[in-house]
Amino acid sequence: MICAISTAYGVGGIAVIRVSGEQAIPIVDSLFVGRVPLHDAAANTIHFGRIQREKEILDEVLCSVFRAPHSFTGEDTVEIACHGSLFIQQELLRWLIDAGCKAAEPGEFTRRAFLNGKMDLTQAEAVADLIAAQSKAEKDLALSQLRGSVSNELASLRERLLHFTSLIELELDFADHEELEFADRSELTQLAGEIGKKLEALLASFRTGNAIRNGISVAIIGAPNVGKSTLLNALLGEQRAIVSDIQGTTRDTIEDTLVLDGILFRLIDTAGLRETSDTLENMGIERSRKAAEQAQIIIHVNEPNHSISPSGKELDGITGTIIEVLNKCDLLDGVSLQGETHGSRLSISAKNGDIEPLKRELVRIAKESMQTSAVMLSNARHYEAITRAHEAILRVQDGLKQGLSGELLSMDLQDCLSALGEVTGQITNAEVLSNIFSKFCIGK
Amino acid sequence: MICAISTAYGVGGIAVIRVSGEQAIPIVDSLFVGRVPLHDAAANTIHFGRIQREKEILDEVLCSVFRAPHSFTGEDTVEIACHGSLFIQQELLRWLIDAGCKAAEPGEFTRRAFLNGKMDLTQAEAVADLIAAQSKAEKDLALSQLRGSVSNELASLRERLLHFTSLIELELDFADHEELEFADRSELTQLAGEIGKKLEALLASFRTGNAIRNGISVAIIGAPNVGKSTLLNALLGEQRAIVSDIQGTTRDTIEDTLVLDGILFRLIDTAGLRETSDTLENMGIERSRKAAEQAQIIIHVNEPNHSISPSGKELDGITGTIIEVLNKCDLLDGVSLQGETHGSRLSISAKNGDIEPLKRELVRIAKESMQTSAVMLSNARHYEAITRAHEAILRVQDGLKQGLSGELLSMDLQDCLSALGEVTGQITNAEVLSNIFSKFCIGK
Repeated sequence: MICAISTAYGVGGIAVIRVSGEQAIPIVDSLFVGRVPLHDAAANTIHFGRIQREKEILDEVLCSVFRAPHSFTGEDTVEIACHGSLFIQQELLRWLIDAGCKAAEPGEFTRRAFLNGKMDLTQAEAVADLIAAQSKAEKDLALSQLRGSVSNELASLRERLLHFTSLIELELDFADHEELEFADRSELTQLAGEIGKKLEALLASFRTGNAIRNGISVAIIGAPNVGKSTLLNALLGEQRAIVSDIQGTTRDTIEDTLVLDGILFRLIDTAGLRETSDTLENMGIERSRKAAEQAQIIIHVNEPNHSISPSGKELDGITGTIIEVLNKCDLLDGVSLQGETHGSRLSISAKNGDIEPLKRELVRIAKESMQTSAVMLSNARHYEAITRAHEAILRVQDGLKQGLSGELLSMDLQDCLSALGEVTGQITNAEVLSNIFSKFCIGK
Repeated sequence: MICAISTAYGVGGIAVIRVSGEQAIPIVDSLFVGRVPLHDAAANTIHFGRIQREKEILDEVLCSVFRAPHSFTGEDTVEIACHGSLFIQQELLRWLIDAGCKAAEPGEFTRRAFLNGKMDLTQAEAVADLIAAQSKAEKDLALSQLRGSVSNELASLRERLLHFTSLIELELDFADHEELEFADRSELTQLAGEIGKKLEALLASFRTGNAIRNGISVAIIGAPNVGKSTLLNALLGEQRAIVSDIQGTTRDTIEDTLVLDGILFRLIDTAGLRETSDTLENMGIERSRKAAEQAQIIIHVNEPNHSISPSGKELDGITGTIIEVLNKCDLLDGVSLQGETHGSRLSISAKNGDIEPLKRELVRIAKESMQTSAVMLSNARHYEAITRAHEAILRVQDGLKQGLSGELLSMDLQDCLSALGEVTGQITNAEVLSNIFSKFCIGK
């Protein structure tokens, strides 16, 4: 039996303590005085009573009773809603431990749900993502994975592949009869091609899925003093970066997040790009270049009064989408350029907060990139395993073309199956599991 | 319909959002897709499903259904347990508000419980105390009040008094017949005496009850450099106060709390008491004197090598219990005095952490003072109203002795009844109520 506080840490109106395991109901019953013992309670019912040990009353509580296998963990579970005093929460935990419970480790309830077959590993991992979700896009992605989008995609592929693998292994058992081919090679070629394509699509979706989960990286670059930090502050709506008229005010890269239209952006303000002999400033410029190279969107800030800077050099090595921006439009006499494009450039004034066109453009680019696929990978562990599955299926395709023996094909098929099985958790090892669940919060 | 997040603020495994009011169930149903609509759900049952609006799924949740009058508020109530992401919590709240709920004000659920007759005002106030409880004694006191200890004590007194008051008022209706006395004066005298005594006992319990709720104040006083701040740090188990060999290191009074054996103590380290011309230091010393005068326990720290300081002056104006302590016993060659009393003094070494005897003494004194009465007042509002009730009943007693007319007696009886009614909330006004509930957290 394990127990943990499942609600956020702190004082609240109520707090919920979850107890799960074969003896969960009798253990809580040993501390609970209600109209009926929880032992006699129907599944999915709520019972008012006191937590009491001998004559000492700890609190008046509501106990929710869940019975195996119809609970989150798949085990008998009691959720105790007590008054949200920290003292009561901690004392109740202590009483439960005295009564025979073990304090749950991070993610142990979800781990049990996985081990009891209530969900596969991608779904278990989605639980943690869902709890950590900061934006709508991130939450939607985690929820679709929790509801089995990745699992379903992989499960059917894996099943069909498994069928062929068994046929080929059957051939090996009849190795004396060389002409026997249970597995139709042309059908297998077609399946391998289909699987290869699906895996490629999943791998391609990772860039977006990862961006949704961790935020779409947006680097703000440009010459010194064009107002990059002012733009960062305007986007965030707060004085995050120090702003001055002195060239080189921003030395280190500054990061912060921003949610626009349900999408999480990770903004990176960089040092102004220029030739300088200042060692510290050069280190900052080097960092800025790196940030720009890795960013998915680059806001390239220019000033209207400057001749257009030769962007060729500044934009070297950049692979993300570039938004050309003309800042300080408030300085342009007479002509209001707010919200208009100037050539291919967006005209804004970071200082006056006239940045709506830029916000719209960020959202537009992000949404465009998100329409790639219905099922999206967002987890680096899945990406790594599916990469291996993809490599293995390419070897299968090659082998089929070259007419390789069943024995050699079988090895590559097994590699592919095992990599896919790692994603969904049909094949696991203890280390991978502890690594996954240690990142959970306690109580989930 | 009102709604609010009832669990602590922050990211947790789960969060609970409470919806209460006549239309609570249909409103949640408009966003809930489960096996059955909550409309058809039996009271006190739990239902798995999705929160969904058109095609957009917000989360998978558990809904607990309570039906009037068998809920905390006495109204139909749904508690939605969602994944504990801040994003999901806030979004769910927004969806509920869009669907017709009002965001609950602080304490509004408990206020409704009071207005719907689920509890009286002392019980409602005890809910807030229970949630704020930091120690066992505090929690026990709040829980006993929630379970009606103060209410029951007052309710029976008030009822008997009400009976007599009606009889006396009946006499007034028959004022023509001067000889009529429905209310037996000797019985009334006895009852007034009884009530007077009970109210006195309740008032006397306030000092302890208040101490339990806010912590028992303990001032550490003594000459400069006897190790007062070192003792504070040793009691707290952390470096709270700055410690040095320089006389007058502690200038301002430093406060912190400590729980020993379930009892909350409020420790106050003071400036060393000495004659000095330093204005700032004298201000500190003045504060120290005040703290000592108001403290319930005073730890008077002495050094073994000094001649015993003439405590008379230092202890002027003190009404609390004094613990005489001999610090720096580690400096005494050869003789170990740890845990022993030295004359009437406790020997300790704050520097070495040998302070167990002092801790035991603090707990002993606190427990002794707590054994005064079963029912304890801890709320200043109750204290103030009961003081008025007590004054009124004294006037009644006086009036009975002097053979005052029923008319005059009746006025004092009404004063007493109304003061008692204010405590339990039978007599209230909107201002008092908002004042009480505004101190609650939101969601309770």
